[in-house]
Amino acid sequence: MMRDSRYDVLFEPVRIGPVTAPNRFYQVPHASGMTNALPRVRAGFRGAKAEGGWGVICTGACSIDPTSDDAPLPMATMWDKNDIRAHALMTDAVHRHGSLAGVELWHGGASVMNRASRLPPLSPSGIPWMATHIGFMGNLRPKSMDKSDIRDVLRWQAEGARKARTAGFDIVYVYAGMGYLGYEFLLPEYNKRTDEYGGGIENRIRFVKEMLDVTRDAVGKDCGVALRVSLEELRGRAGTHQASEAHELIELLSDHADLFDVKMDSSPTDCSASRFTGEGSHEPVIDFVKKMTDKPVVGVGRFTSPDTMVSQIRRGVLDFIGGARPSIADPFLPNKVREGRLEEIRECIGCNICISSWHDSVPVRCTQNPTAGEEWRRGWHPERVEPAKKREKVLVVGGGPAGLECALTSARAGHEVTLADAGKAWGGRLTFEKTLPGLAAWNRVVDYRLGRLNDMTNVSMYLESALGVDEIIDLAPDHVVLATGARWTRMLYSSMEIPVGQLDHPEVYTPDDIAAGRLPQGPTLVFDFDNYYYGGVLTEHLAVQGIPVSYVTPAGQASAWTIMTNELPLVHKALARRNVSVTTLQMLTDFDGETATLTHLFNGEQTQVSCRSVLIVGLRLPRTELRDALEARRADLEAAGIKSITTIGDGLAPGAITHAVHSGHKAARELGLGQSRKLYLRDTPITDCEPGFEHAEAAE
Amino acid sequence: MMRDSRYDVLFEPVRIGPVTAPNRFYQVPHASGMTNALPRVRAGFRGAKAEGGWGVICTGACSIDPTSDDAPLPMATMWDKNDIRAHALMTDAVHRHGSLAGVELWHGGASVMNRASRLPPLSPSGIPWMATHIGFMGNLRPKSMDKSDIRDVLRWQAEGARKARTAGFDIVYVYAGMGYLGYEFLLPEYNKRTDEYGGGIENRIRFVKEMLDVTRDAVGKDCGVALRVSLEELRGRAGTHQASEAHELIELLSDHADLFDVKMDSSPTDCSASRFTGEGSHEPVIDFVKKMTDKPVVGVGRFTSPDTMVSQIRRGVLDFIGGARPSIADPFLPNKVREGRLEEIRECIGCNICISSWHDSVPVRCTQNPTAGEEWRRGWHPERVEPAKKREKVLVVGGGPAGLECALTSARAGHEVTLADAGKAWGGRLTFEKTLPGLAAWNRVVDYRLGRLNDMTNVSMYLESALGVDEIIDLAPDHVVLATGARWTRMLYSSMEIPVGQLDHPEVYTPDDIAAGRLPQGPTLVFDFDNYYYGGVLTEHLAVQGIPVSYVTPAGQASAWTIMTNELPLVHKALARRNVSVTTLQMLTDFDGETATLTHLFNGEQTQVSCRSVLIVGLRLPRTELRDALEARRADLEAAGIKSITTIGDGLAPGAITHAVHSGHKAARELGLGQSRKLYLRDTPITDCEPGFEHAEAAE
Repeated sequence: MMRDSRYDVLFEPVRIGPVTAPNRFYQVPHASGMTNALPRVRAGFRGAKAEGGWGVICTGACSIDPTSDDAPLPMATMWDKNDIRAHALMTDAVHRHGSLAGVELWHGGASVMNRASRLPPLSPSGIPWMATHIGFMGNLRPKSMDKSDIRDVLRWQAEGARKARTAGFDIVYVYAGMGYLGYEFLLPEYNKRTDEYGGGIENRIRFVKEMLDVTRDAVGKDCGVALRVSLEELRGRAGTHQASEAHELIELLSDHADLFDVKMDSSPTDCSASRFTGEGSHEPVIDFVKKMTDKPVVGVGRFTSPDTMVSQIRRGVLDFIGGARPSIADPFLPNKVREGRLEEIRECIGCNICISSWHDSVPVRCTQNPTAGEEWRRGWHPERVEPAKKREKVLVVGGGPAGLECALTSARAGHEVTLADAGKAWGGRLTFEKTLPGLAAWNRVVDYRLGRLNDMTNVSMYLESALGVDEIIDLAPDHVVLATGARWTRMLYSSMEIPVGQLDHPEVYTPDDIAAGRLPQGPTLVFDFDNYYYGGVLTEHLAVQGIPVSYVTPAGQASAWTIMTNELPLVHKALARRNVSVTTLQMLTDFDGETATLTHLFNGEQTQVSCRSVLIVGLRLPRTELRDALEARRADLEAAGIKSITTIGDGLAPGAITHAVHSGHKAARELGLGQSRKLYLRDTPITDCEPGFEHAEAAE
Repeated sequence: MMRDSRYDVLFEPVRIGPVTAPNRFYQVPHASGMTNALPRVRAGFRGAKAEGGWGVICTGACSIDPTSDDAPLPMATMWDKNDIRAHALMTDAVHRHGSLAGVELWHGGASVMNRASRLPPLSPSGIPWMATHIGFMGNLRPKSMDKSDIRDVLRWQAEGARKARTAGFDIVYVYAGMGYLGYEFLLPEYNKRTDEYGGGIENRIRFVKEMLDVTRDAVGKDCGVALRVSLEELRGRAGTHQASEAHELIELLSDHADLFDVKMDSSPTDCSASRFTGEGSHEPVIDFVKKMTDKPVVGVGRFTSPDTMVSQIRRGVLDFIGGARPSIADPFLPNKVREGRLEEIRECIGCNICISSWHDSVPVRCTQNPTAGEEWRRGWHPERVEPAKKREKVLVVGGGPAGLECALTSARAGHEVTLADAGKAWGGRLTFEKTLPGLAAWNRVVDYRLGRLNDMTNVSMYLESALGVDEIIDLAPDHVVLATGARWTRMLYSSMEIPVGQLDHPEVYTPDDIAAGRLPQGPTLVFDFDNYYYGGVLTEHLAVQGIPVSYVTPAGQASAWTIMTNELPLVHKALARRNVSVTTLQMLTDFDGETATLTHLFNGEQTQVSCRSVLIVGLRLPRTELRDALEARRADLEAAGIKSITTIGDGLAPGAITHAVHSGHKAARELGLGQSRKLYLRDTPITDCEPGFEHAEAAE
């Protein structure tokens, strides 16, 4: 296939100071959760994107000194020789495909707690980030930096830049965003200094300007110097001689950086979920930047449409199409555009499971791309599947996310695949969930896989085909994969923090009832101890139907786990907009058709609430009927030549969609490998050199 | 000194199967947060306790298979040859002092999420732990184990035991406590199986019994086989032929283990803070165990008094005095008892900062013992301080936790120390805080240091001695250390999650006002965005004074961070007992003397609350007046021969008491080392062998 010439602009080379990016696809710095502890996993993950055509590939945050120690949150380090060698694995993997490698050197300032290094955090004026959520809270407030502290950070930045060059990086960042140290100097709420680093915008940018200058002095002949800066707050503040302080910042720093990487200020706005925010949402904040500088500008916006990308370039908003989430969901997005294979793009669904991995302090996961992070350790290529040694007949029962992924990957391996589902449409849980407020983009999980499956000649697909044991024996496949999903229970929640008992009343509903179109009557109380999106979004759904609804949870917030996906504040706003009352720290303990009894999670106090119906969003358990029936007739199956029965997805271990897709992919990759246990390669840090701190001897 | 002979019983050897512990001081398995990623740090930490006389030293939880992957929470692994070598550093360090080394082999079952290994968690019946608090929540529910899963875990346990023996361990654990896999089989809430592993207690113990038996078969000739089991729930359930199911469990398993390590079921009861629970609190639950078995029994209870320890032995409650927290606070506790130096014991204060380190996924911290975790990487011995090369005059200004620790450690190094405080009593913030409900034991921080300082001849101490620049110049010390603490501000909290602005009204109080005895009048609203214990305990304090008080916080719970110290449920109970209303997710945004305005953190809705006074427990900032005054006269100081001025503790970076003590200790250790920057050795994992999973090839 040939690409449409209107996309040619995306494949133009662009200069960044002394280096040149081969095209406009720019994987901006983003967390991978891998850190220097997993250097081969990281190199595999980043290298796959270079192979897929991204012209620039950056690291995530890379600490320049132990005073910037975000433990337990994942961060890379650029402290010693082992670190340099660990990063070199990644730069080598990137260079192998002709792309540039960038490093986001980083000092966290007041936002880190230095929990492992046990050094005082640094800040302009002693103002800490005092988050309200566990995992970000801590007790150690930052010291106010004196002049010698500022000199130290500048020196660490310069040393970090030199180490980065040694590691093979082509672009070196100064980071002034997202609440970290540089940003804290920019904002008067953090920066109350009365010296030349505080006061007007020209003073508040001084630290960042000096960081850029020391970086350029250190490596500017060999490496592009990039400034990553959050502009949301500053854009909202009037400037003295420009429209805003953001305008003034770009103007004043234009000569000091080779590239501007511009973004929003906080996770919920910078990396917002598709449930609440569409593609290109940064534009109103960052659209002015190119007017204030002739240096190239990169920005993000969960871009997955090449037409939108072209528009960003043509309209002069951006020079580079920045990607973080879309580059995880499809490392080969640029090559697919280049080769005119647009329909093969695996579009990011904006669920933000990736960012939850960082919040969880573990390597990144992706709902769309099960191979993310598995490139090296499980040997999973994002696009290619090892051809099966023997073409076999594979029957996949259930066409939800796990079943679709398993069928597609099995078919790519060359098997003869039959996919059957009892329902009227493909997608399993998503056939309903995609209709819920804000979740339409999630159906890309189904769309992508259905599109690929429909193109294949070795796949047969059947809807409205409930299979029993006899039908399966008649089909006589070599392998049966069960992807029959889970069902929601009416179990309650105990102060042991586990599901217990069951509430039996005709007006007690589960999400399966709602999905089946059975709506509760009258005032309805939603009791959510699943704590992810589903309780919150079903509450919205009921409210939209005109049902008076209140929301109760034993957690401290509504949809509490969505703090991990940057959605939590927006869930609360959405519920408030629908006039839903939110009651936290309460367990539902009884319901008689007229009154629900709530019991306080900690102190046991009871409250009565009038309602006519209850919806429990609590525990899911696998549907095991078919598996149990098959197991009961093991001999018949063997006689029919069926070699294996594998359960995947929610039918095995109910989880988020990312777990189902991964489970389906894994089963397909391991099909026919028999009973041997497939694990993964265990990565280890590079420890070739004596560990230590290269600048440990410098003056404090 | 000679010890009192009544303590001799504590130093008797005790057999554990084929091995013999040299005395009854038994460091039970406890988290260190160090894991195999920091093997030298860990060996230093555990080895120090052996040096200090603990007869048995155990690891923390040590995973036997990637299906038990608690990431990001710290856990050790016993998976491959590198793991064996990493553990061997610890067993060597323990054996060097004649103690036994134990390993807590562990499978987390449904309580882990396998976030890094991405394997389905295992459980008896698919019942997950569905915690309500971020950091423990997740979306992947466990699969129900089939027979082959059970066989797998048994095989992994046996393989883990053999690897442990190779690593040099003398005692190998089977873990059936704290919600982990073995425990889940014991409790009918988790175990709904209808096969021989579910039903009556004799069936529910089957899995644990088989775990013990495979362990004994694997290593029982060389190693003691220990069962660690939680008995709180089972003790409360009537048995068929014994008083409780807990009785029946011990009776049925008595022949299968060489040692019983008995405990409570959940963090808040097992490892309760001194604020709510006294020494020896487990006894009512575990007192029966020795009556049901002739095997030795170890249990804990935050024991720091040797008389209490002797009583536990004499009364037949325990054979071993288990210690976790007391062994962290004073690794040399046994030797101090042995040598009759009881007054030198550094008693655990029960603040649970140690357990918060595990919840924070970082290496353990201790308020009393700043050297915990620093033995190897900073070279800090828990008892000995490197003698100063040159005896110098050190002036410490401020006698709170940081100043006391700095003075003591400087004096131990041989310096001539002067300690001055403006107040009437030693202890800084603790002079008031020790009077608050439940916090009396915290004053052990002061008692221990004052006791040691009073014994020393090279220390001069002055109360009611506010020092100004002139006085300091007159004293002409070589080194000045400023430990002048912090003050609470009246700053408010913004939706940027940082302190902003200030509330100026005569009836707005800070904790400093309360400490000074200035109590609010009339109904008082406490606004807490510090989120640790202080807001909650001050609320209790006001309620005890008869002041009607309500509590408001932007967090999701009262004293939200105390989930990390196992206190949160008890804080809520304590506030309920005092009739304090708790309002969460709200910011205080205005107060006019009669009405406070609250604004919802997420949706901006406003509420009015009537009150006469407001107490803000929010941001602390350092007291810098003296430091600023000294800096303004740098030339005069130099002329007086003053070589250095160092700020420590809350005066530098306000934190918890643990931070202050560590800061004071660090300053003393580094005194006179000039301007060179003192960091620490950077530990790295052992990577001598090809990493991998030793049982990766076995059948699934």
